[in-house]
Amino acid sequence: MSDVKLEDIVSLCKRRGFMYQGSEIYGGLAGTWDYGPLGVQLKRNIVDAWWKFFIESRDDVYGIDAAILMNQKVWQASGHVDGFNDPLVEDLKTKKRYRADNLLEDLGIEGVAAMSTTQMDQVIEEQGIKSPDGNQLSKIRQFNMMFKTNVGVTEDENSTSYLRPETAQGMFVNFKNVVDSFSPDMPFALAQVGKAFRNEISPRDFIFRVRELEQMEIELFIHPDNWKEEFEKWLQLQQDFYLSLGLPADKLHKIEVPAEDRAHYSKHSIDTEFDFTIGQKELGGCAYRTDHDLSSHANASGKNLKYIPKDGSEAFIPHVIEPTFGLDRLVLAVIDSSYSVDEQNGEQRIYLKLPEHLAPVRMAVSPLLKNKPELVEKAQEVFKAMKQKYGSVIWDDNGNIGKRYRRQDEIGTPKCVTIDFQTLEDNTVTIRDRDTTQQTRLSIDEL
Amino acid sequence: MSDVKLEDIVSLCKRRGFMYQGSEIYGGLAGTWDYGPLGVQLKRNIVDAWWKFFIESRDDVYGIDAAILMNQKVWQASGHVDGFNDPLVEDLKTKKRYRADNLLEDLGIEGVAAMSTTQMDQVIEEQGIKSPDGNQLSKIRQFNMMFKTNVGVTEDENSTSYLRPETAQGMFVNFKNVVDSFSPDMPFALAQVGKAFRNEISPRDFIFRVRELEQMEIELFIHPDNWKEEFEKWLQLQQDFYLSLGLPADKLHKIEVPAEDRAHYSKHSIDTEFDFTIGQKELGGCAYRTDHDLSSHANASGKNLKYIPKDGSEAFIPHVIEPTFGLDRLVLAVIDSSYSVDEQNGEQRIYLKLPEHLAPVRMAVSPLLKNKPELVEKAQEVFKAMKQKYGSVIWDDNGNIGKRYRRQDEIGTPKCVTIDFQTLEDNTVTIRDRDTTQQTRLSIDEL
Repeated sequence: MSDVKLEDIVSLCKRRGFMYQGSEIYGGLAGTWDYGPLGVQLKRNIVDAWWKFFIESRDDVYGIDAAILMNQKVWQASGHVDGFNDPLVEDLKTKKRYRADNLLEDLGIEGVAAMSTTQMDQVIEEQGIKSPDGNQLSKIRQFNMMFKTNVGVTEDENSTSYLRPETAQGMFVNFKNVVDSFSPDMPFALAQVGKAFRNEISPRDFIFRVRELEQMEIELFIHPDNWKEEFEKWLQLQQDFYLSLGLPADKLHKIEVPAEDRAHYSKHSIDTEFDFTIGQKELGGCAYRTDHDLSSHANASGKNLKYIPKDGSEAFIPHVIEPTFGLDRLVLAVIDSSYSVDEQNGEQRIYLKLPEHLAPVRMAVSPLLKNKPELVEKAQEVFKAMKQKYGSVIWDDNGNIGKRYRRQDEIGTPKCVTIDFQTLEDNTVTIRDRDTTQQTRLSIDEL
Repeated sequence: MSDVKLEDIVSLCKRRGFMYQGSEIYGGLAGTWDYGPLGVQLKRNIVDAWWKFFIESRDDVYGIDAAILMNQKVWQASGHVDGFNDPLVEDLKTKKRYRADNLLEDLGIEGVAAMSTTQMDQVIEEQGIKSPDGNQLSKIRQFNMMFKTNVGVTEDENSTSYLRPETAQGMFVNFKNVVDSFSPDMPFALAQVGKAFRNEISPRDFIFRVRELEQMEIELFIHPDNWKEEFEKWLQLQQDFYLSLGLPADKLHKIEVPAEDRAHYSKHSIDTEFDFTIGQKELGGCAYRTDHDLSSHANASGKNLKYIPKDGSEAFIPHVIEPTFGLDRLVLAVIDSSYSVDEQNGEQRIYLKLPEHLAPVRMAVSPLLKNKPELVEKAQEVFKAMKQKYGSVIWDDNGNIGKRYRRQDEIGTPKCVTIDFQTLEDNTVTIRDRDTTQQTRLSIDEL
């Protein structure tokens, strides 16, 4: 990747219609991004691959789609009301607010992830750290990242609700429902794809750290005796899935989360980090959460959330292994690692080396010249047949062939098909490969 | 359908894992529903069919996925901050709150949809209408249905944001982005599937009127001269799509929305109503919105939202035709119209007559007896081959064959395949049809 920067990627994404800033014509809304026509197709392709890999091709995983708005008791029981906080500091002069750990990390201070807020306060004081505007900083206070709203016609404490900050709780509260409807054998999992919301103090890095995000999460319910082997198995499945998206193995790093960074109930946790152009950053995680989730909800709801084994052995509260995937981060990782630059005929070329099954456009069909009706007619015929066959095929007759290739390269279209005068004679077309730029002639039937 | 009631449908949906009440173990959260494993698959199948019908198979529709949280200026410009209200009345004794128009409609009063709040107040007074608990009612006040929240670390007016009450505005604010990235010819459309949120005063009727819903909306941008033909064309496409989901033509009704019920800018609007078991109710709509949307956003944002025709003719603000679909209502319509009752061998049978391409499970594979290893082994072989081929295939060895059929009938599985002793001899299986209950023998290769 050498000198490719995040700005280059953002610029391509906006220019070509992968993502746009949210509410852009009104100056935006920080931390929100809209997926454009190509981005939404790429995202759909990743979701479909995930759904097929983890749900459709297996018989131990049950997909669900729980509501974003949940009863506030869910978030009290899960610990989010009390504990889902980020450390906030304020510039005492400008009143601008910052996330303390980000501020320290940006200054190159090490070990920040493991620091308590008291320790961070100490560092700020001892090293005389100032705000980016050079002013004194306040003490750190805890800022809850859940977006609050009121559900119902009365605005009071009882009607408080939150936008879910993770999809996971929607699965825990449906554990009993799925057991009752399907009597699954243990181990089994629930899985879902959906939006989650976090009021980040400083959203940053394009779609990497946002306020509205999308997650793909799996909650595997197991007997505690088997946690080690199940953990290994699902960590491997997670890795297999990353590789199936074409993410290069040497950019994927498994990082064991040290005890001091884990939640108190989490016995083991391995993050997958990825070499983005912005550095090595978290892509997803796999955590052994013990029986914390179901026990908390059983206690708070008064419901019996034990699983009754079919072999007559003793009922127990299942333990949970949770492989999670950040969907926006996956989209970014796929684009980031596909972004390529080379030289063709003395000119710099940018192209996205997307795997064929993820490319938002699989094929572009063009007439060599757009002012020759016989070429256009033949090309339309081929276009319609290919669209019927592959779905995401587009018609491109804008500019000359060179310009079309450059445009298709930038959006990662694997193949460009051109209909020329020879086509009218022998029913062959040129098919041009994105990565090699080689053109070969093929008969239409072979396409 | 005769005497099938909504309760029967809800009961089947909960029992079999189509939908569960949201946050159920905590007593629920009114107006929210969670899709269970079968519901989420049915919903995915409908979304995929829609995406294919309106986006993938066409070249004039661009899919997008805009954020749920948008800059508050979007909702000021769109008129939702001032005008997205429902009429609220309060029981003066119990303080319970009701939607005034629903209250009047439930009493059989006619013409409520066209009444102003003043007129409703008059009816309540003149007819001495009381609350359902028999107490006096307050005057009506307007209640804004948008959920409010604060985005960012400061809670004040500037940070106010809303959960979008419709996906449409996400498309209007991206009109210019898409034009800049793709230079589409006119007419062209944007389309998206996504969550929307409405703080309904009285959520009711299962997933029909909810606080968290999912929409599939299309915004077609046209030259005003062509509105009539485009309107007719898209109304027909909408109808074609309904029919492709297997909804019976005689249950679909096109209702012209009278001028007094339309927004002031809307020149023509046709709702599609459907014969649900709860009555004839709105399923979706098609509206000609003139240039209201883009003009409002151009004025409020100061951005130029004119379209420049490629033929050099004068730039203009496009007009909009908006075909919209309520996804949850479509799911309900499909289940509702598929819910069937007949008699088999003197016993009542419930089955869902779902079209094959929508059924959450396409095929169930069973061994005749689960305690015969040779049958189980062979059945597993067939199961794996079918799952590879069709995806949504399940293994079912619970209970005897009769029970399995009844269970598969209830979830709408079109075909049940049973492996018996004859299979071991001649590689044939019995395949049983959901609708006719007829069993035929087929060789495994023909499946």
